[in-house]
Amino acid sequence: MPPTITAFERSPDGGKGLARDTRVRWALEEVGQPYEVRLVSFKAMKEPAHLALNPFGQIPTYEEGDLALFETGAIVFHIAQTRAGLLPKDAHARARAIAWMFAAVNSVEPPILELQNALLLERDKPWAAERMPAVKDRIRDRLRQLSVALGDAEWLDGAFSAGDLMMASVLLRLRASGLLDEFPTLAAYVARAEARPAYSRAFAAQWDVNKPAGG
Amino acid sequence: MPPTITAFERSPDGGKGLARDTRVRWALEEVGQPYEVRLVSFKAMKEPAHLALNPFGQIPTYEEGDLALFETGAIVFHIAQTRAGLLPKDAHARARAIAWMFAAVNSVEPPILELQNALLLERDKPWAAERMPAVKDRIRDRLRQLSVALGDAEWLDGAFSAGDLMMASVLLRLRASGLLDEFPTLAAYVARAEARPAYSRAFAAQWDVNKPAGG
Repeated sequence: MPPTITAFERSPDGGKGLARDTRVRWALEEVGQPYEVRLVSFKAMKEPAHLALNPFGQIPTYEEGDLALFETGAIVFHIAQTRAGLLPKDAHARARAIAWMFAAVNSVEPPILELQNALLLERDKPWAAERMPAVKDRIRDRLRQLSVALGDAEWLDGAFSAGDLMMASVLLRLRASGLLDEFPTLAAYVARAEARPAYSRAFAAQWDVNKPAGG
Repeated sequence: MPPTITAFERSPDGGKGLARDTRVRWALEEVGQPYEVRLVSFKAMKEPAHLALNPFGQIPTYEEGDLALFETGAIVFHIAQTRAGLLPKDAHARARAIAWMFAAVNSVEPPILELQNALLLERDKPWAAERMPAVKDRIRDRLRQLSVALGDAEWLDGAFSAGDLMMASVLLRLRASGLLDEFPTLAAYVARAEARPAYSRAFAAQWDVNKPAGG
C-alpha cells in the first residue's frame, strides 16, 4: 500500500505549487515512492476526521499503514529517513542536512510568513504601506546571510538533500514579491531546484488538481 | 571531549531562560551529557569565526569532534538521536515525536516570533496598539488547537520527548504576554516541563551566566 497524503481540494494559490503538499510530493518523487492523494476541502480540514490527523487543521498529512504524521518538515524527514536519496549516509553530513531543514522552517520561513500575513490579512489596514519595508528588510537580512552561506556552491552542503528541498520550497514563496530576484545567487539556486525532474513531476501533479478551469 | 555549545555572553532576556541555548542545555541535561559553553558577544556573533558555525549569526551552535551544527531544532534532534532519553525507540512513536518538534518551530513559533517583532521592533510605531489584537489572535488560534490536541494528557504523545521539550520551550516565550495563562491546560503543561530536574539544571546554568550583577 503506497502512502496517502492530503492536499487542498483547491489550493488558494491557484496552482503555483506553493501549498505545502508540493514539498511532500517533491520528496516522494525524489525517492521514487508512489503515493496516493486525498483532497480535502477547507470545510473538511476543520472537521474532527482531519483534525485527528493534523491538530492544526492543515494539509499535508501522511498516512502509511499504522503511521499517521503531520507537519511538512516531519513528513519530508520521515520520507528521507526511510528511503534513499534525500539524506547523506555519513552521520555528520546527515546531521548538517537536517540542520538546513530546520533552518528553512525556523530561521528563513518565519519572516516570510510574516510577509504573507501582511499581504493577506493586513493589506487593507491603514499601516499596510508604511509597515511593508521593515517586513521585507527582515527577510532581506536572512537572504543576505543565506546567500553568503551558499556562496558559489550548487547546494547548501554537498549533494542535494532534504535540506535543499525544504530551503528551496521556502524561498519559492518569495518569487512574487521580487525579493528572491534581489539575490541572484539564491534565485539561481531555486531555479536549479525547480529544474530537478522530481520537482517537475511534483509541480505537475499539484497543477493537475489546481489549474484554473480550462487551464 | 564533551560537546561545546555557544550562548550569549549576556542574554537580552536578562536570564529568563528564553534564549535558545536553554533548549539545548535542557536536551543535554535530559540525556545526561556533560557539555562546555563558549560565551559570545553580540559583536563576535557577526564575525567570520562565528558565522562559519552559524551563517545566521546566532546562538546556539554545537561542536563535537569534527561535527559542527547550528539551528536549535537540529541540535536538539542530534542530541536526541545520539543519546537515549528524548525519543521513543518505536519507529512510529519516534516519527510522531519528531512531528511535534517541527510543529513547535514551524506551526506554533512563527506567530510568537511575530508578536516578539511587534513588541521589540514595532513598539513605537503608530500602528503598534491597533495591530496588536490581531497578532495575539493568530497565536490564540494555534494555542486553542494545541490545547485540544493535548487534551488531558501529560505530554503530547506518550512519554516526554524532544517534541515536548521544543514545544514547552516555544510556549515559555508567551508567559510574559499573559497569553499562555489564557489556556490553563497549556500553562499546566509548561509548568510540568519546567518542573523536570533537567530543565531546572539548564535554567540554573543560563541564570548563572545572565543574572543581573548582584542577583
